[in-house]
Amino acid sequence: MTKKLNIAIIGSKFMGRSHSNAYLKVHHFFDMPVEPVMKVACGRNEAELRAFADQFGWEEIATDWREVVARPDIDVIDICTSNATHMPIAIEAAKHGKHVICEKPLAMDAEEARQMLSAAQAADVRHMVAFNYRRVPAIQLAKQMIDEGKIGRVFHFNAVYYQDWIVDPEFPIVWRHDSKVAGSGAHGDMNAHTVDLARFLVGEITDVTGAQEIFIKERPLADGSGTGQVTADDATYFIAKFEQGALGNFMATRFANGRKNFLRIELFGSKGSLVWNLERMNELEYYSNADEQKEQGFRNILVTENVHPFINAWWPPGHIIGWEHTFIHEVRDLLLAIANHEDVTPNFYDGLRNQLVLDKVVESSQNGQWLSVPEK
Amino acid sequence: MTKKLNIAIIGSKFMGRSHSNAYLKVHHFFDMPVEPVMKVACGRNEAELRAFADQFGWEEIATDWREVVARPDIDVIDICTSNATHMPIAIEAAKHGKHVICEKPLAMDAEEARQMLSAAQAADVRHMVAFNYRRVPAIQLAKQMIDEGKIGRVFHFNAVYYQDWIVDPEFPIVWRHDSKVAGSGAHGDMNAHTVDLARFLVGEITDVTGAQEIFIKERPLADGSGTGQVTADDATYFIAKFEQGALGNFMATRFANGRKNFLRIELFGSKGSLVWNLERMNELEYYSNADEQKEQGFRNILVTENVHPFINAWWPPGHIIGWEHTFIHEVRDLLLAIANHEDVTPNFYDGLRNQLVLDKVVESSQNGQWLSVPEK
Amino acid sequence: MTKKLNIAIIGSKFMGRSHSNAYLKVHHFFDMPVEPVMKVACGRNEAELRAFADQFGWEEIATDWREVVARPDIDVIDICTSNATHMPIAIEAAKHGKHVICEKPLAMDAEEARQMLSAAQAADVRHMVAFNYRRVPAIQLAKQMIDEGKIGRVFHFNAVYYQDWIVDPEFPIVWRHDSKVAGSGAHGDMNAHTVDLARFLVGEITDVTGAQEIFIKERPLADGSGTGQVTADDATYFIAKFEQGALGNFMATRFANGRKNFLRIELFGSKGSLVWNLERMNELEYYSNADEQKEQGFRNILVTENVHPFINAWWPPGHIIGWEHTFIHEVRDLLLAIANHEDVTPNFYDGLRNQLVLDKVVESSQNGQWLSVPEK
Amino acid sequence: MTKKLNIAIIGSKFMGRSHSNAYLKVHHFFDMPVEPVMKVACGRNEAELRAFADQFGWEEIATDWREVVARPDIDVIDICTSNATHMPIAIEAAKHGKHVICEKPLAMDAEEARQMLSAAQAADVRHMVAFNYRRVPAIQLAKQMIDEGKIGRVFHFNAVYYQDWIVDPEFPIVWRHDSKVAGSGAHGDMNAHTVDLARFLVGEITDVTGAQEIFIKERPLADGSGTGQVTADDATYFIAKFEQGALGNFMATRFANGRKNFLRIELFGSKGSLVWNLERMNELEYYSNADEQKEQGFRNILVTENVHPFINAWWPPGHIIGWEHTFIHEVRDLLLAIANHEDVTPNFYDGLRNQLVLDKVVESSQNGQWLSVPEK
Repeated sequence: MTKKLNIAIIGSKFMGRSHSNAYLKVHHFFDMPVEPVMKVACGRNEAELRAFADQFGWEEIATDWREVVARPDIDVIDICTSNATHMPIAIEAAKHGKHVICEKPLAMDAEEARQMLSAAQAADVRHMVAFNYRRVPAIQLAKQMIDEGKIGRVFHFNAVYYQDWIVDPEFPIVWRHDSKVAGSGAHGDMNAHTVDLARFLVGEITDVTGAQEIFIKERPLADGSGTGQVTADDATYFIAKFEQGALGNFMATRFANGRKNFLRIELFGSKGSLVWNLERMNELEYYSNADEQKEQGFRNILVTENVHPFINAWWPPGHIIGWEHTFIHEVRDLLLAIANHEDVTPNFYDGLRNQLVLDKVVESSQNGQWLSVPEK
Repeated sequence: MTKKLNIAIIGSKFMGRSHSNAYLKVHHFFDMPVEPVMKVACGRNEAELRAFADQFGWEEIATDWREVVARPDIDVIDICTSNATHMPIAIEAAKHGKHVICEKPLAMDAEEARQMLSAAQAADVRHMVAFNYRRVPAIQLAKQMIDEGKIGRVFHFNAVYYQDWIVDPEFPIVWRHDSKVAGSGAHGDMNAHTVDLARFLVGEITDVTGAQEIFIKERPLADGSGTGQVTADDATYFIAKFEQGALGNFMATRFANGRKNFLRIELFGSKGSLVWNLERMNELEYYSNADEQKEQGFRNILVTENVHPFINAWWPPGHIIGWEHTFIHEVRDLLLAIANHEDVTPNFYDGLRNQLVLDKVVESSQNGQWLSVPEK
Repeated sequence: MTKKLNIAIIGSKFMGRSHSNAYLKVHHFFDMPVEPVMKVACGRNEAELRAFADQFGWEEIATDWREVVARPDIDVIDICTSNATHMPIAIEAAKHGKHVICEKPLAMDAEEARQMLSAAQAADVRHMVAFNYRRVPAIQLAKQMIDEGKIGRVFHFNAVYYQDWIVDPEFPIVWRHDSKVAGSGAHGDMNAHTVDLARFLVGEITDVTGAQEIFIKERPLADGSGTGQVTADDATYFIAKFEQGALGNFMATRFANGRKNFLRIELFGSKGSLVWNLERMNELEYYSNADEQKEQGFRNILVTENVHPFINAWWPPGHIIGWEHTFIHEVRDLLLAIANHEDVTPNFYDGLRNQLVLDKVVESSQNGQWLSVPEK
Repeated sequence: MTKKLNIAIIGSKFMGRSHSNAYLKVHHFFDMPVEPVMKVACGRNEAELRAFADQFGWEEIATDWREVVARPDIDVIDICTSNATHMPIAIEAAKHGKHVICEKPLAMDAEEARQMLSAAQAADVRHMVAFNYRRVPAIQLAKQMIDEGKIGRVFHFNAVYYQDWIVDPEFPIVWRHDSKVAGSGAHGDMNAHTVDLARFLVGEITDVTGAQEIFIKERPLADGSGTGQVTADDATYFIAKFEQGALGNFMATRFANGRKNFLRIELFGSKGSLVWNLERMNELEYYSNADEQKEQGFRNILVTENVHPFINAWWPPGHIIGWEHTFIHEVRDLLLAIANHEDVTPNFYDGLRNQLVLDKVVESSQNGQWLSVPEK
């Protein structure tokens, strides 16, 4: 008989919706030893929360996360709140022996991340950071190919993450503009993703130099009552050196007019290269030195074949999956890890290493110097 | 209180899975006055059917479709069987007053389609053909733009539908190779889709000339017991004239090596042009004469904005949806039509007009002549 | 010492300019045993001709082509006139023992082409039809790969040639609209090219069915004196069967809004596929079944390497060449053939076979039937 | 009567060939008040030089550049030598009152560039740096559009210049690996180009932080006698701040496997964006906020229309030009400037500003700090 795992989700906005969809679907497409039960949705605005729970079929609602994480019937706490609340929720959940999945970036800074990791390790629970792009089939395929040596020694890892939703200076202040709530702006939201892909595909980053910019420093308040100061970065660029010798480049901006969710990574290695872009996430470009010389070129692999990671659960070749599927894959692997009492990655350790890089970029952009990234 | 509609699905293979996913999700993402209840799944192989029903949560299973369509508690019959059985099931379902959604092509030939349409009209039930590509957001946007006059008078509608899953001569005979079961091969399976898009976007086709080809005439039987004759076409090409004066071109083949589910349409008009490809279904290319001359060019519209059809229900800009979402949109509109006692398209009339075109192409490829397509 | 060959060019418009550039450059980039001398330019409008000759450095001008082809000092006659005059000039030139290169389509119909071929063969001169796209490096590479068996048995050859320069109904009548001068419109101008590529890459065409369309039947006269009837086709589509079993599709139109010189060919074979587009003529897309399964995809070969045809004469990798270079390659091979007393292709035989296909398409579009293409 | 200008070229390798082609063609395609006479080619290896002069039609050869720059019959000195010799030749040429065009980067460092600028200004001659990419029609169009305000305030200028010709560790040492001869490696060769485009399109750079890398530190000597140390950078990355507030990113590498001459720039502005790539140099991508919301998208402008810069001299729409054409445009503008006694850009002032940026990047990559770029 399939075991059931009771899920509590904290947060009902964009990520709350994405994760809900994952719990709805995962066991209908993957052969799972455990089945998630959408037990309780927790948030601050009861009316909104009720609508959210009704929409996605959460059985109950609650407005106090402390009560929720203490409930004995809950197995997994899924944290989809704004960044400033990740730490207290995750630590409290771990103390109550709950498995925890937390949205990214893991914390407001490395110090918080360190405490979260300690708490999760002390409680011996499964912990995961929702860097969902690791579980795009094309990224998993890239990882396979790198591990097989297909591109050889990596010389360059170049990533951009371009959006444009706040190019308009009349776009009002939201929580993501407030560094006290968001930790940072484009940097924590977007570079966190590309740093995770870098660590997954290439390895640890040892040194960084960067720059952060706020192009529109004052914006209207949403309620029309005046204007407010933007304190979170609109864009952050940094150059990085990897432990294994590669040179890295990272650009995150919300001011790339026309780019909606354009996350492109380029890996250039001694035997070949890989290029991938989230807006065409089912495709992976691959160049190989091993091809006959007159026929070398970047191949566009449509990652929708049975032989490709995760695809067996879905549709025939050429029938693409969407952005939301990454969360289904993520939740699948979390649930399997719980069922099998095994670790899952990316976990809070990955969240901490990620945060260590992000922190040093901020510091570098302030003091104008190349900085070493500590290992813990 | 949301009304419930009991669904029975006949067929549990590829399309059965796609439709099941739609019933699972539609009310979680769209605000629906009715909610589908996944009541009964019907098929011939009980073991397979049980697994299918368990996977997707169909409450019951049944192996006799005649019993199912006669059940008083069933509101909607969803036909996902192979083509030769569409007619009897649909007609019987209509006779029992059930709403019917039927996979494409609607029938084995126009005569069958005509009877199905009559039966549905006589029963005054909702009837729909599952030409799901009409409900790709980019196609809906194309339709809007055409209706607004953005591309003016259409001169050309050129469509290809390329797959490659039977290029290998060792690929065994399946039902799709058997014209008695499938009606036709690439033609009915793939040209049916592009003819529907042509009718939706441009209008009726009046004349055709075509060619059909079977490249590999004998294939191994799946059970290894020998070989069998391929009787369904591997590829069908045809040229068409539209009522409104445009010239059309249609190519369907399962021998386009490297193309997995590559359905590309090109519309060239007096004021602009549109190009779309299913493998990048979230994108629509648009050229406009109205742009400043030195800046004219094909624009790649990423159809993931709130202002785009259906997108409001999904994710922020740049977060792409997948192939499966087309069925969710389709089922949404069917259920709304049922709730509102309104017609929905494409319906059996569209299925008939589609079949009339397909039939004449077959006839033309046999007698070597341009043929007129009858209107009914 | 390098031998000199005296060239006479007849015609000073678009093609006259393209060929002139070729004679200017060929010996500066290729190691040639012969050097072209730009001796005389011949045309009807003396003022225009003088400007043309001055611009490109033709030593003399002449207004009577009959005198020119009779001049004993001329070695090569290059025919860049409108189609209706190709035959008389070519035949007369051959009679005077001149080598002849003639713009495409070779003639007004197959009967003319036949006479031209006979005349050239009787005179034992070199004869060439200026199907310059054969000498795009990417096309030569495609040919090499096909000959090596890289794509196996070809199932499909699909070609489009899209332009849009007469979409505007106010665009005045030019000679290309007049079937008496041009022979045909889009068909002879554009399908002639794609039929040549088809014959070069796949082989002979045996059967055709087609349709021709004139969308704008009346246009203003260039001098503003009224309007004139368009008698040459705006668009011609046809389906073809190849001797070796492939199915072919050809579309030529001057009404593809936004497409400027968009000639795309797609070859799908049992082992792989090739796609090429003139607007990105330095690139060749290639799919191979021989690639490891999880890494299969269309490769974009940038055909600018030393190992690629003709490239050695030009620039380092990634430094693209332009459309005009195809003529330089063409003239190179013509001059080498003359120097070496060898045949060159495509020659008048190819021009005839091409014309035979074109003629039958016209006939088919008139009588509505599939027609066989004669071999001579 | 057309005035003649006698040209002397110093250097007969890659750039010598490119410039020779420009002198061969410029007056055949542009209406020029002056015509270049290919008078003398100067180099060190007499045999190679003779072949070069014969190939391109240089009237004389010479092996001592000091004699050449002193010749009274020479009007223009064209410097195509390796970087370390740019300064002495340019200064000496200026002293003799010659107009000078010099390959990029202008000098080994800013100090040299400053002296070259002084010498040219003192002599009141025309001076130009051969940043040929400014004269790609698509780049000129981008400049026009930016000046018209089409993309508004520029927030980001991101450039990559990727090549891969020394990925193979067995590729022998050439002069470009030797910092004493080349000044720098990828940085001076490639970033010099993108910095020029940045200055042309956006404005001056005020601050930089960067990193340089030598991935393969020892390579075989070309003569097989052993190995040598690589002292010029394989890759240089830097982040920049522009005077007008934009954030810039520059990456140059010769280790981007599969990228041959891939120079891509991205400009994101408040009203729109532009993207361009040298490998598809005839295309310009443009996104505009001014488009109707549901139809916004990156447009691919094929920059081959009569209304586009320089194109009038060439071919009809869609008939692409090649990399070599940029030099023809460059030489055209130099000769016109000489004829009209007007300044031409980019000149030695641009070369100096460029070099000031490059120098500070090198310094920053050594001392690990953000550095201000001096204005002179």
